[in-house]
Amino acid sequence: MPEFSQRARSLPASPIRKLVPFADAAKQRGVRVFHLNIGQPDIATPPEFWAAIRNAELEVLAYSPSAGIDSLREEIQSYYARLGHDLQEQQVLVTTGASEALSFVFTALMNPGDEVIVPEPFYANYMSFTLGKDAKVVPVTSSLENNFGLPHVEDFEKKITPHTKAILICNPGNPTGVLYPREALLRLQEIAQKHDLFIIADEVYREFAYDGNQHTSCLSLQGCEQNVIVVDSISKRFSACGARIGCVISRNDELMSLVLKQAQARLSPPTLGQIGAAEVYKLPSSYYAEVATEYASRRDLLKAALDRMEGVVCPEINGAFYAMVHLPVDDAEKFCQWILEDFDHQGSTVMMAPGGGFYATPGLGQHEVRIAYVLNREDLSAAMDCLAMALQVYPGRIANPLAESQGV
Amino acid sequence: MPEFSQRARSLPASPIRKLVPFADAAKQRGVRVFHLNIGQPDIATPPEFWAAIRNAELEVLAYSPSAGIDSLREEIQSYYARLGHDLQEQQVLVTTGASEALSFVFTALMNPGDEVIVPEPFYANYMSFTLGKDAKVVPVTSSLENNFGLPHVEDFEKKITPHTKAILICNPGNPTGVLYPREALLRLQEIAQKHDLFIIADEVYREFAYDGNQHTSCLSLQGCEQNVIVVDSISKRFSACGARIGCVISRNDELMSLVLKQAQARLSPPTLGQIGAAEVYKLPSSYYAEVATEYASRRDLLKAALDRMEGVVCPEINGAFYAMVHLPVDDAEKFCQWILEDFDHQGSTVMMAPGGGFYATPGLGQHEVRIAYVLNREDLSAAMDCLAMALQVYPGRIANPLAESQGV
Repeated sequence: MPEFSQRARSLPASPIRKLVPFADAAKQRGVRVFHLNIGQPDIATPPEFWAAIRNAELEVLAYSPSAGIDSLREEIQSYYARLGHDLQEQQVLVTTGASEALSFVFTALMNPGDEVIVPEPFYANYMSFTLGKDAKVVPVTSSLENNFGLPHVEDFEKKITPHTKAILICNPGNPTGVLYPREALLRLQEIAQKHDLFIIADEVYREFAYDGNQHTSCLSLQGCEQNVIVVDSISKRFSACGARIGCVISRNDELMSLVLKQAQARLSPPTLGQIGAAEVYKLPSSYYAEVATEYASRRDLLKAALDRMEGVVCPEINGAFYAMVHLPVDDAEKFCQWILEDFDHQGSTVMMAPGGGFYATPGLGQHEVRIAYVLNREDLSAAMDCLAMALQVYPGRIANPLAESQGV
Repeated sequence: MPEFSQRARSLPASPIRKLVPFADAAKQRGVRVFHLNIGQPDIATPPEFWAAIRNAELEVLAYSPSAGIDSLREEIQSYYARLGHDLQEQQVLVTTGASEALSFVFTALMNPGDEVIVPEPFYANYMSFTLGKDAKVVPVTSSLENNFGLPHVEDFEKKITPHTKAILICNPGNPTGVLYPREALLRLQEIAQKHDLFIIADEVYREFAYDGNQHTSCLSLQGCEQNVIVVDSISKRFSACGARIGCVISRNDELMSLVLKQAQARLSPPTLGQIGAAEVYKLPSSYYAEVATEYASRRDLLKAALDRMEGVVCPEINGAFYAMVHLPVDDAEKFCQWILEDFDHQGSTVMMAPGGGFYATPGLGQHEVRIAYVLNREDLSAAMDCLAMALQVYPGRIANPLAESQGV
């Protein structure tokens, strides 16, 4: 047999999905599994989305333009204009989810061996997209004790080499739930300008900011417009993950032309998803406020439940719908498998994503799990009851996870 | 500004789409443009597709499994079983179009500098997907005089180096319209086995075989099951290009596991397209026969019209819905731009894809265009009238293109 590529063999299995066979087996045994492992909200997709598809009355489901249907690009422009960001049409390119947007951006930026600096823990698939281009994620570690706030400027600067092309952030953060304040982004801008780096900002959770905090888009950073690349998606914003519609936004014309060439090579993003997306982008700001209120109440429930569990440490979380949580267990991956394989509470159990997969630094995250609070309060409450019971009986329970993992 | 990647800058603009601005300008002047430049059929998407989406009655448009919805994978297995190919579930993975399927396969196979041998002319985007992995397309030239039949074994063997990983074919061919007979595929198998290479077979046009010819899938090649990778799509088969649903098929478990890791990283293919696809894969063989009959009649019309034009050479075509045609012009790219910019016949003109973009060997295809006969006979006939008139008045007309380009 001819050999497969080094890069493909180096790709990590998804920490979010690799426990799926154990969850499937649990379901086959009749156990109900609460899915807190994946950012798949249970919020209804807006009726406007479904109506747009029903009313399209197409005869032929044709390719769209490679950069996206005009009406959708216009609605995206209008949405950004309402947020205070004026964009030209060619500064918005529609992609097959934020995943493809990231893949296009990395291909445009990264030569083999190039590096992107990312605060860890980070969305695990950043690693796959980077390795897929023979490039490298260089982590800067943020910590639970600091509520996963943006690391210090000097921590970033220590990691900069001649191969560094960009800093990638997710704001608000998956998996951390942290919303970076404007001051933090200004520090980031300073680093990018001083060292001539791109800032790639994954802002798909932009509308999920709680407790009166306002999201600051990197598009508002003045004086580094050519360095900023925003990756966006309708998946979470409109609970339409399966539509597979995202976009790349940048005022850098050369970047956008390199992204367009890749977009042309894959022909077009999904037409049906675009038709629905064009409608939901017209929704008023009250839509976002209502959804954010719902998530904030879930966050409150989650945080309160976790804070009641002995040995569990949940940071302050004020954005997105994830929490990176310390558990009093020997190994979070073993625990996440055990809770699916060997445990149930009143016929139910919980699927979570082990923390290790969200770190590039070996050994970190061993006592952490990512919990996505994407279920309604009743289910979330039942899932927390399961978790509390499981932690009491798990054979690998340890006394103080922070003492083990961080020497605190 | 930091530099962009070498690979992104090396990506070619799509020859299929790069004349779009000139077509748009023609339309703005009120000129009707017949689109023969892109494989976008005007055949109606089957009503079963639309009914499946209408009847799904989803509340949340959720991610699907990364490898595709179970019911779709089962229907794809059943479809292949009816063709005589028994496949296991894990040997079928649903992708976002054949484009993503190819991208996954190249990532799995290609180290930087690795080579894939492809008979030219070939589907232009193969070049982008290969360059996107820092790999290289090595062309083996086929010729119009030979109706673009599979090149000889020795021509392939001359191109094999230690970096060769695979031979990639499109059967039936885009842009050539050639259907490779079984004997040709057996020769290919011999090369692959002797030199330990993968065979990547793009079979998206499988059901478009005319004149009583039967398509032979590379899945039927016995004794090299581990070497064969098939890329497929519903786009053309069911006139559903905008659904963006394709698949990778292989009996090589390691390949499929490397493809699955990539599939997990991008989360899932579009859910709506999969729901529709699961239904249309149930259609009886009479559906394919009816569509093939329609395309064969268009092919007859096209071939007859081209054969009537002085200086035009159209090969025998017996599959897919393209023809790679010699025109009596100085430069096909200039001609394709001129016909959009400076010509109309009774208010209409024609968009075609210049031939050069389908060759990797510099200079080839300069007098060729790819014509996609995806329009109904009335429109196709009107488009041929336009082309005939245009060739009579084009200032860059030359006497004998074959004499110029190939010394015949």
